[in-house]
Amino acid sequence: MSYFITFEGVEGSGKSTQAARLADSLKRAGHEVVTTREPGGTELGRKLRAILLEPDAVAPTAETELFLYLADRAEHVSRLIRPALDRGAIVICDRFSDSTLAYQAWGRGLDREMVRNADRFARAGTAPGRTILLDLPVEDGLARARQTGPADRLEQETIEFHRRVQQGFHEIAAAESERISCFDAREDLAALSHQIAADVLGWLGNAQ
Amino acid sequence: MSYFITFEGVEGSGKSTQAARLADSLKRAGHEVVTTREPGGTELGRKLRAILLEPDAVAPTAETELFLYLADRAEHVSRLIRPALDRGAIVICDRFSDSTLAYQAWGRGLDREMVRNADRFARAGTAPGRTILLDLPVEDGLARARQTGPADRLEQETIEFHRRVQQGFHEIAAAESERISCFDAREDLAALSHQIAADVLGWLGNAQ
Repeated sequence: MSYFITFEGVEGSGKSTQAARLADSLKRAGHEVVTTREPGGTELGRKLRAILLEPDAVAPTAETELFLYLADRAEHVSRLIRPALDRGAIVICDRFSDSTLAYQAWGRGLDREMVRNADRFARAGTAPGRTILLDLPVEDGLARARQTGPADRLEQETIEFHRRVQQGFHEIAAAESERISCFDAREDLAALSHQIAADVLGWLGNAQ
Repeated sequence: MSYFITFEGVEGSGKSTQAARLADSLKRAGHEVVTTREPGGTELGRKLRAILLEPDAVAPTAETELFLYLADRAEHVSRLIRPALDRGAIVICDRFSDSTLAYQAWGRGLDREMVRNADRFARAGTAPGRTILLDLPVEDGLARARQTGPADRLEQETIEFHRRVQQGFHEIAAAESERISCFDAREDLAALSHQIAADVLGWLGNAQ
């Protein structure tokens, strides 16, 4: 059994904050925890992240964008995630395959089966055991994301794009309700952290 | 009918020289010709080429490398190759899908069907009508490539890797002998250019 946890959700849903808080809770409970994110979890991934999110560059085509995210994932899984899981650490990752499906298939309109197959090849059998989906209205998320700094290329997308992405997350969560726990991201930060920690500790307890 | 010509072969086989000579011949015959190459045919592609061929960086995994080449191709086809073909230009490209198959499937050992399917998605229906394969013993090619400058990451691979790649090119050429014309790259430069121009002009004549 390996302990791979992912955080998913639209822009500004508070994934990175909640991921860091969960990592603290699990460390206090005595676990080795590795926190990471996509894109950009490896040295090569950081170069790709710069290409993918640069606000002023010519936007890559939808297919190009998919392959760049998958290159980032293949490198990330094989260099960082898999080795950490293999030595028994808990890995917490801010965005993973569900984001690729939600953004590239639902958001950009690429063929879902093609995206699923290519993603399966990129992650080579590594998959999250527990996924925390932070849900909030798209408008609230974008308003929050804009408070934290200049908008990157994804944040600059139309509201309709972000609505399709959210719809994707909802459908994926409905289809995989055993793996994915959905939380209202508008709740009080501390209360939400407690709920997430309880959810994950329950899952770890059952998994052991 | 669109006029898309690719050059393929192992390192040091003289592809870029012969591609430039063919472009000159076709221009003299009154055609609009666009010459390009992979990786690196677009602005984004040049950033990826730097990542892919940088000799001192940590080598990406085989899967990562595949997805980077496909990101480069998706961008290249949609931004440069397809628009040029659509306006009636002849496009000559130094390396394309056959290189991905030969290097990533035969060379690196990735699953051939997966590579073919992902490549098909990246090029979105665009495929060469004529391919010039320049063949020469692997040792000769590497010796030639090393005369032209410091070795990039691919040239630094083992001789066994380059032999598998060459085997890939041979099998692909045997399976698609109508599209792929194979030439001995050790022949005299000018004689070879004449043979290639005659081959391509014959193909263009039949295609029109």
